[in-house]
Amino acid sequence: MLRITHPTLLINKQICQSNIRKMATKATASEVIFRPHFKTHQSVEVGEWFREEGVNAITVSSVRMAAYFQSAGWNDITIAFPVNILEIREINRLATHSKLNLLIESEYVADFLSETLLSKVGVFIKIDTGYHRCGIPSGEAARIDNLVKRIAESDKLKFRGFLTHSGQTYHAKSVEEVREIRDDAGKQLQTLKKIYLNEYPDIIISVGDTPGCSLPGKIPFADEIRPGNFAYYDLMQSYLNSCTLKDIAVAVACPLVAVHPERKEAIIYGGAVHLSKENCRRENGELTFGMAVRLEEGKWDTSVVIGHLKSISQEHGILEMQEGVKLKPGDLIAIIPVHSCLSADLLRENKLEI
Amino acid sequence: MLRITHPTLLINKQICQSNIRKMATKATASEVIFRPHFKTHQSVEVGEWFREEGVNAITVSSVRMAAYFQSAGWNDITIAFPVNILEIREINRLATHSKLNLLIESEYVADFLSETLLSKVGVFIKIDTGYHRCGIPSGEAARIDNLVKRIAESDKLKFRGFLTHSGQTYHAKSVEEVREIRDDAGKQLQTLKKIYLNEYPDIIISVGDTPGCSLPGKIPFADEIRPGNFAYYDLMQSYLNSCTLKDIAVAVACPLVAVHPERKEAIIYGGAVHLSKENCRRENGELTFGMAVRLEEGKWDTSVVIGHLKSISQEHGILEMQEGVKLKPGDLIAIIPVHSCLSADLLRENKLEI
Repeated sequence: MLRITHPTLLINKQICQSNIRKMATKATASEVIFRPHFKTHQSVEVGEWFREEGVNAITVSSVRMAAYFQSAGWNDITIAFPVNILEIREINRLATHSKLNLLIESEYVADFLSETLLSKVGVFIKIDTGYHRCGIPSGEAARIDNLVKRIAESDKLKFRGFLTHSGQTYHAKSVEEVREIRDDAGKQLQTLKKIYLNEYPDIIISVGDTPGCSLPGKIPFADEIRPGNFAYYDLMQSYLNSCTLKDIAVAVACPLVAVHPERKEAIIYGGAVHLSKENCRRENGELTFGMAVRLEEGKWDTSVVIGHLKSISQEHGILEMQEGVKLKPGDLIAIIPVHSCLSADLLRENKLEI
Repeated sequence: MLRITHPTLLINKQICQSNIRKMATKATASEVIFRPHFKTHQSVEVGEWFREEGVNAITVSSVRMAAYFQSAGWNDITIAFPVNILEIREINRLATHSKLNLLIESEYVADFLSETLLSKVGVFIKIDTGYHRCGIPSGEAARIDNLVKRIAESDKLKFRGFLTHSGQTYHAKSVEEVREIRDDAGKQLQTLKKIYLNEYPDIIISVGDTPGCSLPGKIPFADEIRPGNFAYYDLMQSYLNSCTLKDIAVAVACPLVAVHPERKEAIIYGGAVHLSKENCRRENGELTFGMAVRLEEGKWDTSVVIGHLKSISQEHGILEMQEGVKLKPGDLIAIIPVHSCLSADLLRENKLEI
C-alpha cells in the first residue's frame, strides 16, 4: 500500500472486474453487442479488464479519447458524440487505423463528412427518444428519411443504424420508471429500424445508459448496448437502484484537515477539483456532494458511514459528521463520489488500484 | 492565431494585466501587502504578469501548488488551507527553500508541526468571521489564546497574525452587503490583533475574497489582502458587481456540434470536464452554467450575447439560444465561465493567450 497524502482515486479492481463481468454476461444472455463506454474510466489499464471479458468494441465521447484508446490497441470505436467537424483532420487520422463509427443528426454534417473524409466510416443517426439533448426526435420521419438518403448518396458513409442515449433515466423516481423509459426508447428505435431493415439488412439499434442497462433481466429492444458508468457505479446510481453501495468500485481517499465538533463538521482536503461539483439528493431530501465512509488500510467500508459532504469549494469539502463520529486532522477517509465519471476524469493522475 | 478545434481556455492578456494592475494599485493606495492567490490561474506565465507589478509574495491553496510555484522562483508563499499534516515531508522540503506561511486552527496541528518541522515557518491562526468553513470563531477568546500560547512555546513556529476568508460575500445580495461582511470581518480581526499587538508587534491581519477586495475605494481593516479570482473574474463576479463583463479576462472557446432550431437550442462541445458543473442564478432567476457570446478571430465580444447554457453533462453543454441567433455545426462560440478558477483548473493543458 502506497502512502496516501492527498486526494486519490481508489479503484477496487475486484469490484470493478465483477461489474464488468456481470454486464458482459447480461449482454451475452440478451444477445446484444457489448460496446462499453470508456469515458467513465478513461484508463488503458481498466480497458484491459474489459478485454479479458471478450470486449473488442468500445464507445468514447471525444476524438481525443478515441485517439488515446486507439494508441492502446483498440480499433473498433464509436464516438458517441455529435461529430465535431473542426476535428476532421484527427477523425481522418483515426479512420485510417480503426473501424470508426460517428454520430450524425443533420444533412449539413453528413455533407461535410462526405466531402472531407478520406476513408469510409460508419455512421449512426442519433435519435432523441425523450432526453432532449442531442438527436432527431424519433417522430420526425421526413428529417430522418432525408438524412438516410443523404448518407446513401455518399461513398464515404456507411449507414450503421439508429442510436440513442436515454439520459432521462437519471431523473427517474423509481426502477419502474427507468424500465418504462428504456423500453419506450427501444420501441421507438425498433419502429425506425423496421422501416429501413429491408433496404439496410445490417442496421442495428444501439442504446446505452447505465440505469437502463442495470435493470434486472435481459435487455430488450436493442442490438447493442453502450453503458459506461456501471464499471465503477457511484452514489447517484445507488440512489437510482442501479447498484448497491457494495457494487461501487471507486472512492476518493481524502485527508481530514480540521475538525469542528461544535458544528459537528470536519474539513477535508478534497474539493471541486477532485470530486467535481456534482451533487444529488439523499433519501432525506438533503443535497450531498459525496458520502464519507471509513477507510482502513486502503480499503473503504460503506457499512460505516461517517457523514455527507454538505458543500464543496475548490479544494475544501465540508463534512457533516454523523453522531458519535470521532476524527482528527491527518485521518484519511473515503468519499463515495456522486458521479464517478467526473471524479475519475479529475483524478486521472492521482489514482491507485487496490 | 492557432486553429482551435476543441474546448480551449482563452486568456486575454491585456484585460488580465489591467485587472492585476488595478488591484496592485488599490493595495498600494490602501497601504496593504498584496499577496495574490494563485489558485485561480495556476500558471507560471500569468504569475510573471504579477511580478511585473511588483508582486513577490503569493498565496496558494495546496502544498502541490506551492511546489509548482516554488519551482518557478516564488519563495514567499502562504498556503491558505488548513495544514494537511500527511504532507509534512513536502512541507519540510518547501520550507527549506522558501519563506513559508501555514494556517492552523488547532493545538493538535500546532503540536504536530512543532515536533516534525525541520525549519521555522510562519503560522497564521485561521479565524472564522462568518463563513463557517474553516477557522476558530473570532469570539472564542480562550481557544485562540491557548493556540497563541502553544505557538509561542514552539521554536519551529513564528506567529504571523490572524487570517480569514469571508467567502460568505459570494452569497451577498448587494454591494452594500458585501461591504458590511468585509468590514465586519476586518473589525473582528482588528479586535483580536489589539489583544496581541503589544506582545507580538509584527502580527498582521490578512483577508482575501475577491468581492470584498473589488469594492470601490480603499480597503480598510487589513494589513494584507489575498484575492485571487480578480485576475480573471467571471460571470458570478459580474453578477456580484465585483466587475463588469468587460473586465472578465477568460472565456472558453467551444465548437458548436448540433443545432435544434425547433427547441431554440444548440449543443456545444464543452461540458463538465471543461467548464465544471458550477452554476449560478441569472438576473431573471434562471440557472446558468455559462454565458455564450460571439467569438470572432479569437476575440470574444460580451456585447453580443448568444444565450446561456441551461445544462451541462460530461462533454456536452445545452445552449439556449437568444431569439434570432443563427448558428451551424463547426461554429466556434465563447463561453464566459460561471467560475473561472474551476474552468482554468480543468483547462490547464488547453489554453491560449490572446
